[in-house]
Amino acid sequence: MNATPIFKSDILKARTQQLQEKMRAQGIDGALIKQNADLYYFSGTMQEAYLFMPLSGAPLLMVRRNLSRARAESSLENVIPLGSVREIPRTIAGHGYHIPGLLGLEMDVMPAKLFLYLRDDVFPGVKIADVSHAIREVRMLKSPLEIEWLRQAAEQLNSVIKEVPDLLRPGMTELELSIELEYRLRRAGHQGFMRMRAWNQELFFGHILSGPSGAEPSYFKGATGGKGITPAFSQGASNRVISMGEPVSIDLGGCVTGYMTDQTRMFAIGFLSGELKKAYEAVIEIHYGLREKIRGGETCGRIYEWACNKAASLGYADNFMGYGEAKMPFIGHGIGLEVDELPIFSVRNSMRLEAGMTFAIEPKLIFPGVGHIGVEDTYVLTPEGVEVLTTSPDEMVIITPG
Amino acid sequence: MNATPIFKSDILKARTQQLQEKMRAQGIDGALIKQNADLYYFSGTMQEAYLFMPLSGAPLLMVRRNLSRARAESSLENVIPLGSVREIPRTIAGHGYHIPGLLGLEMDVMPAKLFLYLRDDVFPGVKIADVSHAIREVRMLKSPLEIEWLRQAAEQLNSVIKEVPDLLRPGMTELELSIELEYRLRRAGHQGFMRMRAWNQELFFGHILSGPSGAEPSYFKGATGGKGITPAFSQGASNRVISMGEPVSIDLGGCVTGYMTDQTRMFAIGFLSGELKKAYEAVIEIHYGLREKIRGGETCGRIYEWACNKAASLGYADNFMGYGEAKMPFIGHGIGLEVDELPIFSVRNSMRLEAGMTFAIEPKLIFPGVGHIGVEDTYVLTPEGVEVLTTSPDEMVIITPG
Repeated sequence: MNATPIFKSDILKARTQQLQEKMRAQGIDGALIKQNADLYYFSGTMQEAYLFMPLSGAPLLMVRRNLSRARAESSLENVIPLGSVREIPRTIAGHGYHIPGLLGLEMDVMPAKLFLYLRDDVFPGVKIADVSHAIREVRMLKSPLEIEWLRQAAEQLNSVIKEVPDLLRPGMTELELSIELEYRLRRAGHQGFMRMRAWNQELFFGHILSGPSGAEPSYFKGATGGKGITPAFSQGASNRVISMGEPVSIDLGGCVTGYMTDQTRMFAIGFLSGELKKAYEAVIEIHYGLREKIRGGETCGRIYEWACNKAASLGYADNFMGYGEAKMPFIGHGIGLEVDELPIFSVRNSMRLEAGMTFAIEPKLIFPGVGHIGVEDTYVLTPEGVEVLTTSPDEMVIITPG
Repeated sequence: MNATPIFKSDILKARTQQLQEKMRAQGIDGALIKQNADLYYFSGTMQEAYLFMPLSGAPLLMVRRNLSRARAESSLENVIPLGSVREIPRTIAGHGYHIPGLLGLEMDVMPAKLFLYLRDDVFPGVKIADVSHAIREVRMLKSPLEIEWLRQAAEQLNSVIKEVPDLLRPGMTELELSIELEYRLRRAGHQGFMRMRAWNQELFFGHILSGPSGAEPSYFKGATGGKGITPAFSQGASNRVISMGEPVSIDLGGCVTGYMTDQTRMFAIGFLSGELKKAYEAVIEIHYGLREKIRGGETCGRIYEWACNKAASLGYADNFMGYGEAKMPFIGHGIGLEVDELPIFSVRNSMRLEAGMTFAIEPKLIFPGVGHIGVEDTYVLTPEGVEVLTTSPDEMVIITPG
């Protein structure tokens, strides 16, 4: 049991008010929050519970299990037991809240069956709206505390990535290297489980890819995917043996108090072809160019467009962010409690950048049959520009085989 | 790229026909399958795709990405590209299928937003039904190949659990022990990612709990939960230091080709109180009693009821499967591609047991403030009775500190 709530009551109050403002703009006069990351963000606890968010005033955390734990972990004032989902309206009313006319639900993640049950059986006659975008927008702007945790997650990740030169040897498999890094991330405090919001998106620490594996697309929505060790989890490290002279990419997530950072670094054993070295120079040029371009007020779409144009001007139009049918229309993504947060640096996205956003930017070039060359850092946008949170040096490391 | 499809075409054909039979009984004349585990089960690949399942004949796998990989991995005949979700009806019709009058969707897992988009925009005028229970019923009965993989997963898990006596030392934390076991599971071929079907249910290998942690409930729907290392993932191993004389439970999953087994074993360093030893004897009595009771034709509810009565007769009515508000109304769950498959051995569940079902049965006693005592094995039901798949000996191991 955590004696001190992870989010103090003034932090939860500020988040509540930010969401209420967005609800007001949408005409939503009450929301029911259930998804794990959202629940944790607005209550500080991740028990089995529903959080009722009124249009004004304090929210009500209704806990199915475990009540005593929710009370110990949350700094919210109103933490009460809930018998069954059907009792939610009566419970809300019994605590002096009015039943909303337009109820917000997390429709991007809530399963259809539960959604229809809430709409038709639990709240008959109440109109329903999707409150998920509003929630994601609130969560998108990080507080100093959250940025500090991202910084710690970056430090955790750095402490592991810097061991790669000592670990990587010709003849070892991607999987063997991945396992050593996973082990060290856990030892460094990583919670293990990586959260993604989108349905059917799954992740296990990240992807260690070598040579042609780096050009293997998967169901994972990234420029790189990897084969994995089984079609039952067809992404990430495979049993492929790593040889000298191949690009080896380490794309991993650090995680502290639920907050994640994302980083990609490149290695090779012994040597790398001039062509791939040239590709790395191009990636670095795009990478540093992006750091200049990313500014408050700029749109995500224009950043994406700039990166694509830059890649094209360097002769890598076909290779940038995937190849052929596997090309991904984005170059970065928000990150925090989920790997796939807002903003998304995607084609024609008009969302404007604001101070407080945290995101990973990952220019990557894919060469079918050869591999991929890329780099990725996690940033926070400040009024002065982007600040890099990830701390590993971004030169490609050519390891001398011992 | 896997040269040989994981599921041969005759296996997929049999699964298809089993689902079609259940669709017919429900009046569903076409289903769209999208969830990762379901997609893998019916197509042998886990790319970003929709599988259209007609009422008769071969299904159509429509792939957004990656087509070449889906074609290499799947033994289905009809694997075609899909531009956008909106094109699904035209694509289906273009391949000679009729548009269903009653379309089955995986409503237990598909997010509301996608569900409404499919219903209102992609298939306007088409009625929708929940096909998820039919899918789960087909997946519930395992083929010899699946049982073989479960057997291998059990062997993988056994190879790791047998190292516990060499690893467990007073002064180490639950987390330290957990990390060592996770590392060994990965080295033994575990894919890392553990799949659960229910929304908001998350898992990372399993739970290593000592002393009072074993009595700590969480949002994880099990008799035991654990504190975890952060309220952001508040389950499983914590930073609690393990001392001599405490019950230490190892509840982990093995995994081969996506198929999982679940097992719990108990350890203690040096000694354990007579009271807890007596509790272990009671658990073992329930455990072996259940093995006798579980027979084809029996209902899940009656098995559950028998276990509760048995626990009560031994004086543990209050402690069985949780304590107080955290009591869970089940003693076992189906397992395969997901940890939470059918059947569920829950209160008043009238589902009848059949040969081919695979499940984990986990009688556990919870003692608030002290810990938990439990055991769990994964079984397959054969015409002759239950066969134990997990192979570790089920005596509690008292380790002599080195």
